[in-house]
Amino acid sequence: MASYRIDLAYDGSGFHGYARNSGVRTVQEELEHALATAFGSAVDTQVAGRTDSGVHARGQVVSFEAESGLNVDALARSVNAILGPEIVVQSVSRAEDGFDARFSALSRSYRYFVDDGPAPNPLDRHTVWHVDWALDEGALARAASAFVGEHDFASFCRAADGRTTIRNVTACSWSRESPDVSAPNGRVIHPGLLVFSVTATAFCHQMVRSLVALSVDIGRGRIAPDAIPGIFEARDRNAARGVAPPHGLVLWSVQY
Amino acid sequence: MASYRIDLAYDGSGFHGYARNSGVRTVQEELEHALATAFGSAVDTQVAGRTDSGVHARGQVVSFEAESGLNVDALARSVNAILGPEIVVQSVSRAEDGFDARFSALSRSYRYFVDDGPAPNPLDRHTVWHVDWALDEGALARAASAFVGEHDFASFCRAADGRTTIRNVTACSWSRESPDVSAPNGRVIHPGLLVFSVTATAFCHQMVRSLVALSVDIGRGRIAPDAIPGIFEARDRNAARGVAPPHGLVLWSVQY
Repeated sequence: MASYRIDLAYDGSGFHGYARNSGVRTVQEELEHALATAFGSAVDTQVAGRTDSGVHARGQVVSFEAESGLNVDALARSVNAILGPEIVVQSVSRAEDGFDARFSALSRSYRYFVDDGPAPNPLDRHTVWHVDWALDEGALARAASAFVGEHDFASFCRAADGRTTIRNVTACSWSRESPDVSAPNGRVIHPGLLVFSVTATAFCHQMVRSLVALSVDIGRGRIAPDAIPGIFEARDRNAARGVAPPHGLVLWSVQY
Repeated sequence: MASYRIDLAYDGSGFHGYARNSGVRTVQEELEHALATAFGSAVDTQVAGRTDSGVHARGQVVSFEAESGLNVDALARSVNAILGPEIVVQSVSRAEDGFDARFSALSRSYRYFVDDGPAPNPLDRHTVWHVDWALDEGALARAASAFVGEHDFASFCRAADGRTTIRNVTACSWSRESPDVSAPNGRVIHPGLLVFSVTATAFCHQMVRSLVALSVDIGRGRIAPDAIPGIFEARDRNAARGVAPPHGLVLWSVQY
């Protein structure tokens, strides 16, 4: 037997999250069904990040065990032919023995896309959260800095039944892409998207969307960046600002 | 009466093109319906580029005449509240007297997005054409150069009933965006998108999609770039290579 790695992308709009959940449509169920069809027998998989309902993935990683000598390119083609356009295997590759997409992962990176322009762009409405306020990039940068490091993220996580909510955020930033459309007089018709990029060894449930919701409230001036330490200390979800919608969130990459 | 300018974006996926066409859903019909509802009476509009069925717009421009002193921001809000998420007014602004979105336009710019990576990205499948061959950027660049200038584009246009097919392409290029996802070992999991950018005083019907289809055949090595002058000379659609699908095409901006 040998270990294999699948690099996977999906549009999460039509799925109730990655993980199998009886009675609803999930990415895992469709992927494992396609793998089982291609192999002729059931396949157990591990996944790096169990994304929530409506959340997308660009660089999700899945692993499984199978006989050595598998034709990985043929398998990728077969599985993609079975899957619809919403889930696409980017590649299948042989991994080192014992590779496990979940337990071998050193860290995960997510991106969250926010549009603070005067009107939404209909072409990216399934992957970007449009907010009705121009956000202050200086305030966003201060918020991102305050999230870095090892903290108890209890104020930013859905209740976890007594399990630890301490997480280590190794990198966190807000950046603005260059404007995509400008008028000939130089007037910007639409500013570039704001991109929240965050890497941590692991995340607790709804953590990225909670950090984004608080960031947006800070960027629009409703909360000061220096309120963040107190929000961490509260260890209370009511101290934060709810969650940003799922459709702006993408599991971007996984580091091994 | 005064002249007004609408900057407009739309996802063309669900429309049979921009221009009114009885019995089918069009962008013009929905926009004019929303304007008429906001005004309480019918409004005549002019448009910079009549996009085809399934083609998108990021920087479309529409003009209309109305009483001077219009509250343009309130109008934009009202119209957007009536329109669904597929069509969005980016802004309404007062234009100089006599401004006509169609006849005042000096040139139009389109972009066409191609993905030549090993597998499509499900997150951009409505706005990008995925092709099954890695394309040669040098060959694409030579094709783009050969399209620049005043030519008879008869080989690249749907029949125009004896009207001229001479057009002036003032800028044309292929560029590659930086890769969006790389593996930690530096292996590129997915290359950046290829973007075809073309500006002309005007375009004939299906011209951009014809230039893209020929470019892709050149980029994959089925046709040599130096065949292009002969294709122009043929003045015959069969000399070109059909048309690229509409969903990769975006009317990007209009110059006045």
